[in-house]
Amino acid sequence: MNQNLTRRQLLAMVGAAGGATAIYQTGMAMGVMADTGAVARLDLKNVGASKKNVVVLGAGLSGLAVAYELERAGYDVSIIEASHRVGGRSLTLRSGDIVDEMGNRQVCEFDDHPEMFFNAGPARIPGHHRRVLNYCKELKVPLIIKGNFARNAWMQDNDHFDGKPVRVGHYVADARGFLSELLYKAIDLNRFDQPLSAEDRERLLQFATTFGDLRPGGSYAGSSRAGYDEGGFLRPAVSREPKSFEALLNSNFWRRMFDGSERPDWGDPLMEVDGGMDGIVKAFVREIASPIRTNAQVQSINLTSSGVDVVYNYKGAPQKISADYCFNCIPTHFMPGIPNNLPKDYREGLAALIPGNFMKIGLQMKKRFWEEEGIFGGATNTTQPINAIWYPSHGIHGDKGVVLGAYVLFDRVKEWDRLSPKERIRLAGECGDRIHEGYSGYIESGVSIPWGRMNHMMGCGTQWTDDVRERYFKLLQQPAGGRHFMIGDQISYHSSWQEGAFASAENALLELDQRVRAESSQTGMG
Amino acid sequence: MNQNLTRRQLLAMVGAAGGATAIYQTGMAMGVMADTGAVARLDLKNVGASKKNVVVLGAGLSGLAVAYELERAGYDVSIIEASHRVGGRSLTLRSGDIVDEMGNRQVCEFDDHPEMFFNAGPARIPGHHRRVLNYCKELKVPLIIKGNFARNAWMQDNDHFDGKPVRVGHYVADARGFLSELLYKAIDLNRFDQPLSAEDRERLLQFATTFGDLRPGGSYAGSSRAGYDEGGFLRPAVSREPKSFEALLNSNFWRRMFDGSERPDWGDPLMEVDGGMDGIVKAFVREIASPIRTNAQVQSINLTSSGVDVVYNYKGAPQKISADYCFNCIPTHFMPGIPNNLPKDYREGLAALIPGNFMKIGLQMKKRFWEEEGIFGGATNTTQPINAIWYPSHGIHGDKGVVLGAYVLFDRVKEWDRLSPKERIRLAGECGDRIHEGYSGYIESGVSIPWGRMNHMMGCGTQWTDDVRERYFKLLQQPAGGRHFMIGDQISYHSSWQEGAFASAENALLELDQRVRAESSQTGMG
Repeated sequence: MNQNLTRRQLLAMVGAAGGATAIYQTGMAMGVMADTGAVARLDLKNVGASKKNVVVLGAGLSGLAVAYELERAGYDVSIIEASHRVGGRSLTLRSGDIVDEMGNRQVCEFDDHPEMFFNAGPARIPGHHRRVLNYCKELKVPLIIKGNFARNAWMQDNDHFDGKPVRVGHYVADARGFLSELLYKAIDLNRFDQPLSAEDRERLLQFATTFGDLRPGGSYAGSSRAGYDEGGFLRPAVSREPKSFEALLNSNFWRRMFDGSERPDWGDPLMEVDGGMDGIVKAFVREIASPIRTNAQVQSINLTSSGVDVVYNYKGAPQKISADYCFNCIPTHFMPGIPNNLPKDYREGLAALIPGNFMKIGLQMKKRFWEEEGIFGGATNTTQPINAIWYPSHGIHGDKGVVLGAYVLFDRVKEWDRLSPKERIRLAGECGDRIHEGYSGYIESGVSIPWGRMNHMMGCGTQWTDDVRERYFKLLQQPAGGRHFMIGDQISYHSSWQEGAFASAENALLELDQRVRAESSQTGMG
Repeated sequence: MNQNLTRRQLLAMVGAAGGATAIYQTGMAMGVMADTGAVARLDLKNVGASKKNVVVLGAGLSGLAVAYELERAGYDVSIIEASHRVGGRSLTLRSGDIVDEMGNRQVCEFDDHPEMFFNAGPARIPGHHRRVLNYCKELKVPLIIKGNFARNAWMQDNDHFDGKPVRVGHYVADARGFLSELLYKAIDLNRFDQPLSAEDRERLLQFATTFGDLRPGGSYAGSSRAGYDEGGFLRPAVSREPKSFEALLNSNFWRRMFDGSERPDWGDPLMEVDGGMDGIVKAFVREIASPIRTNAQVQSINLTSSGVDVVYNYKGAPQKISADYCFNCIPTHFMPGIPNNLPKDYREGLAALIPGNFMKIGLQMKKRFWEEEGIFGGATNTTQPINAIWYPSHGIHGDKGVVLGAYVLFDRVKEWDRLSPKERIRLAGECGDRIHEGYSGYIESGVSIPWGRMNHMMGCGTQWTDDVRERYFKLLQQPAGGRHFMIGDQISYHSSWQEGAFASAENALLELDQRVRAESSQTGMG
C-alpha cells in the first residue's frame, strides 16, 4: 500500500467519497420536497356550507391537531378516545394523576406544587421541529430552554474508572484530546508527508492542536476544558488530571456519548413547555369546541360507499357514528384486533409495524442535591439499567425537584416490566446511589411508566424496518378508500416525537384538502 | 524516526506526557486549596459590640457583596459610588436607561416591556460559579437556563464559503468527520501497526468512526448530525452535503469555534437571571440597609494609625469619612490618579495592571426573525467586526426581542470606539445583513457599550501578565496596612466574571475576619 499520499490524493481521499453527495442527489432526483423549512399555516378550504363531518379516533397529539384544524375549516368533528384522558403519550404527571399501567395502576404522589411534575412522554423540543413550535406559538404555549447536554453531569460505568462517575466535560475533553493527539502524531511522523505542502501540514497540525487542546508538540496532557480540580478564581487553576487513553478506550461511553448531543433532535438548545409538556395538549383542548368522548373504545371501522362507520363502546353500550372521513391515530398494533374492512394491503401494512418500548421513571427528590454538584439540568449517562438520570432545569434553587430516574429503551425495558412499581423505584434508587451519594435517601415518591404496559397504548416508538418502510409507508400515508386516514408519529420518519405526530396530521389534512377542493370544483361549489 | 510503534509506546506516547500531571502535582505542592467546591456560607464573627466601621469604595458586585456581608456581621458600613448608579459593569439596560459613555451619552430607547432588556455586562452563569449561584439562591434571584451553544445558529466569514453563513451544527459535524477520517486512514494504513493488537486497532477504528460518524471503511461523507437539507418527517431525511475539507481548513472558524463551548465557563448549560442580570444587583440593594451614596467620587485614600481616611467629592464639596477598614473596588487603573499613601509595592502592583476592553451592542428587533430560522437562543459567530450575534433565549415566540448585535474584545474595539453610537448601530446592521436577510431592517433601536469609554470605568477585563501576576497578585490579595482591601474581579483569576468579583470579596472578608478574631482574642473580647 502506498505510504506516501499526494495532497491531491489526501484531499480526494478525505471527504470526496461520493456517499453523501450520491445520497443527496438521489434524494433530489426522487423529487423529495423540503419539509424541514418554515411551515406555513395550513390553509384548508372552509367547508362550512357543505357540513362535512369527521370522526377522529384517538385524542393523541395528531388527533387533536386534526380536530383543531378541521373545526377551523368548518368541519363537524367528533373525537373518540379509549382511555380516561386525552393527550396519548404526551403525558405529564402531577399530584394525584393516575398511571394507567395494566396490572400496576399507580397514583402519582408528588407534592401539589407547580414545579413538581414529570414528563412521562415527550420532554424536549428542538428548534427545527417547526410544526410543534408553530402550534406552541399559535396557541400561546409558553416555552423555555431545557438544559440537555451538561458538561457538569456525570458518566458512570460499574466496570470502568473504578465504577466512579466521571464528569461529562472531563470525559469529552479527554476523548477529543487523545483523538487529536493520535492524529497529530500521524501527521507529525510524516504519515501524510511530501508532497503535502508544508502549509497544509502546518494547518492540519494546528487543527488537531485546537480541536484537542494539545500542548505544543502535539501531546494531550489534560485541558482546562475538562474542568478544574482546584483553583481558577483566587488561585491558579489546576485542570482535572486526564484519564488514561487506555481506560477511555476500554470504556464504552464514547459510543453513545458522542452521538447524543451531536444529533439535531438532541442538539442544544432544546426547549420544553413551561409547566409541563402537556401544555400543548391543554391548549388544543381549550381551543377545540367539538366533543371529545373519553373512555370510548373503538369496536369496528368500516368504509362505506360515502364515508366511514365507526362503532365504539361507551358505558357498556355500543355507539355508532357515521362520518364522511375518519382520522385514526389508534396505535397501529391494535388495528389487527379491531374488525375493519380496510383494503388488504393497507391492513397488511398496519400489521407489519412493530411497537417499540420505552420506560421512564420520575422521582420526586426532597432536595436538589445535584445543584450542589454544579449540575443545573442536563443528563447523566450510565451503563446501569437506568441508563440515564435527567435533572430538571426549571425551578432552579427550589426546595425539591423531580428527576428522571430512568430512561430505558426497547429490550432493556423487559427487566423493568417484571418489577412492581415499588421495586422499580428501589432499583432506580440503587443505581442512582452509585452516581450520587445518598441518592436513594432523597426519593420521596416515584412513578414508572413502561409504555409497553400502559393501557390503550402498549408500546412507544413504532419500528419500521427498511423493508416495511419501502413496501407500506407511502400506502399508509394515503387515505384508505379516500376516507380513512391513518395518522400519528407512527406514520412518520419521526416516531415517538411530537413533530412526527404533527407532520403526519399535516400530511393527512393536505390529502383531504386536495380531495375536497377537487370535489367542490367538480360540483361547482368552489 | 521509528515508523512502527509498539502498543506500549503508543499508549505511553498518547496521554502519558507529564504535562498535566506535573502541573497538577506542582499545584498540590504549592498548597493550593480547593476553591471550586461547594462554598459554605461565610461565617464572619459578629462585631456588633465593638461597632467597627467600614467604608466601601465602589458599588460594583464585589463592593455590594462586602457591604451585605459586613452589615450582617454587625459592621457599620458606608458605600461610596462615583457613578450615578450601582452595579458597576453588571449593567442591564432597559427603556429610558442612560448609557454613560464619555462623549457619547446614550439613552436606551427599547420598548418598556419586561422582555426588552440588554445585559451590557455579565450575561452568563456557569454551574461551577458557586459564589454567584449561592448568592442567587440566598437572595432569591430567579435563574433560568440560557441557550448558549446552538447548532442551528450560524458561522459566517466573508472570505470563505462564498461569504454565506453555515449552520454551526453543519460545521461541527464536518470538522469532526474529517478529523476522524484522517485518523481512521492513519490507523487503517498501518500507521500504528503491529505490534498493536488487532483488538486495539479495531477499537481505535471504531472510536474514530463513532466520533466522526464515518461510513463503513472510514470515509466521512456527510452526517445527519449536520442537519437535514430535506425530509426527515414525512420523507426520508437528506443530510446536508458536507463542505469540502479544504474549505474547512482554509477557513479560520475552527480556531475559536472549538474553544468556546468546550470551556467550563461557557459550557452548557449556562444560566441567566430571569428578567436581567442586574437582578443580582437589585437583590443586594434591597438587602443592604447601609447608605449607598452615588455621584460621589473618591479624591484621596490615606492609611492612618488606626484605619483609613477617605475624602470624596459630593455635590461639589469634599466630604471625609474615617473608617476602621476600607474595601476598594475602584478600577485599578484609576488608583495611580487618586492620591494615597498605600505602600509603594502595592501602588506599583496596581499601576502594573492594564485595563482590557470589551464592547457590546444591544439591538431591539421588531421581529424575532431568528426563530423562523430555527434559532432559539445561542450565538452566531462571524469574522466580521461584530464578532458575534447572540439571540435571546427568553421570551420565545414574543413579538420582539433584543439581540446582542456585537461583542468585540480588546484591540478590535478601537475601530468601534471611533464611531458615533448611530454609526455603530449602522455598522452592526450591515454586518448582520450578511448573516440574516433583512437584518438591519428589523432594528428598531440600539445601544452600544464600549467599556473602555464608559464613565468611571474606562475598561473591562483587567489584564495580568504572567510576570505581573507573579510579582503582585498575592500582595494585592492582602490588605495594605492591614486596613485597605483591594477587591473586584480585577483581583482574581476570573477577571470580567461575576464569580471573580465574589471570590475576591470572599477572600478579603476572610482576611478581615481572621484579623478581627485574632484582635478580639488578644483583647479578651471574643
